[in-house]
Amino acid sequence: MKNEKILNVSVDCVVFGYDVATKSLNVLVIKRFLESEKEVLVDDYVLTGYHVYQHETLDDTATRVLKELTGLTNQYKKQFKAFGNPDRLTNEKDLIWIKNEEFNTRTFTIAYYFLLKTDDVDLNKNEHQAKWFPVNNLPELGFDHKKIITEAYEDLKTKCLSEPIIFKLLPDKFTINDVQDLYESILGIKIDNRNFRRKLINKKYIIALDEKQVGVSKKPAQLYIFSKDVYDKMFQKNYLINI
Amino acid sequence: MKNEKILNVSVDCVVFGYDVATKSLNVLVIKRFLESEKEVLVDDYVLTGYHVYQHETLDDTATRVLKELTGLTNQYKKQFKAFGNPDRLTNEKDLIWIKNEEFNTRTFTIAYYFLLKTDDVDLNKNEHQAKWFPVNNLPELGFDHKKIITEAYEDLKTKCLSEPIIFKLLPDKFTINDVQDLYESILGIKIDNRNFRRKLINKKYIIALDEKQVGVSKKPAQLYIFSKDVYDKMFQKNYLINI
Repeated sequence: MKNEKILNVSVDCVVFGYDVATKSLNVLVIKRFLESEKEVLVDDYVLTGYHVYQHETLDDTATRVLKELTGLTNQYKKQFKAFGNPDRLTNEKDLIWIKNEEFNTRTFTIAYYFLLKTDDVDLNKNEHQAKWFPVNNLPELGFDHKKIITEAYEDLKTKCLSEPIIFKLLPDKFTINDVQDLYESILGIKIDNRNFRRKLINKKYIIALDEKQVGVSKKPAQLYIFSKDVYDKMFQKNYLINI
Repeated sequence: MKNEKILNVSVDCVVFGYDVATKSLNVLVIKRFLESEKEVLVDDYVLTGYHVYQHETLDDTATRVLKELTGLTNQYKKQFKAFGNPDRLTNEKDLIWIKNEEFNTRTFTIAYYFLLKTDDVDLNKNEHQAKWFPVNNLPELGFDHKKIITEAYEDLKTKCLSEPIIFKLLPDKFTINDVQDLYESILGIKIDNRNFRRKLINKKYIIALDEKQVGVSKKPAQLYIFSKDVYDKMFQKNYLINI
């Protein structure tokens, strides 16, 4: 076993939060700061993560990490990829940060992403100096966390085309414009308004309420909810081949 | 660090092979056999896997495992999930198999699946007593490998609806019936023949050859190929929202 590295397994969490007011898809990251007497050694951001406790499943660890960061439980989470390149934690700042004691450790991380509303997180309550950044305008990130966020975002883009996960990012009651704004924000595209509206309204699982927006300056728009029950019943055995 | 389990990280591979002649989607598993003087202790099947070598990426390990099992390289592979429940290797047979020395080890496995043609694998060449089983008629499996196969299969079912991965399971030249048979085999459904044929023929990336089947007793059918180049160009920026 000599020269063998000690293995470590962690879970890292990409927390996506959508801000319906600013139409911005954001990622929650925490500050990493270290200085010597002379200079700043490390000053950037990282994802939150932690090693997997002995009696925990991977899902347990992800849930714990999110709860410690945001206070939230029961958010949509998806384990999307494991990262384990031998050189993933070997740039200079990372070595300063993890210190010598862990120099001989190889860390595999199982990455999850969470989908929630920016509004649901009270950043004043956390001790991590956590901060939202737009997914398309991220700060300098430590370790391989830029890569992890990029891959999480790619997975989200693909998945939101074929599964109704997008509603996890919206308030329970939303307008059709809210849904279109969100798709445009995630995919970075412009969607034809009339086609989109017609298609969406025709879905049996998009249900119109007897309610309209309140407190808006323009003409208040109709509010809708997404019914997971209806969706699940429709798609239980109804495969739609769309290659 | 006392009482801490030693961590181990492995890669397990679900090898899906499609047999176009019998229209059967199969999984390649290897025999696990152990007997004492008195009785058979372990007699079942498992997936092939191996721990991750020090200088390997996870993809490297998966590629190595497939090559050792089948001789094949460059097959479609997908890392689909990590499994790390604390109790995943604790049933009686598994404990006999892994022996006492590894009793205090917690093994995380990063699971991949591969898509290939049953015909491409020469089982006589391998030393593992490897065998194909239909995915819907699996033998008794050790560890949590039944669960891993089930989750790989679910991922394949979802993915084949929105990405053209199905062509990895077919010969380069195929008939429209071959594609339909394959979808029906994977999804366990009956597809309307005329609709399916019309839709598929209209795809720009399904290209008719100046060739027909040879050596068939019925009327020889038109052969087609799938063009990845055309597909990639069409879908590069062309998101199709289909929730």
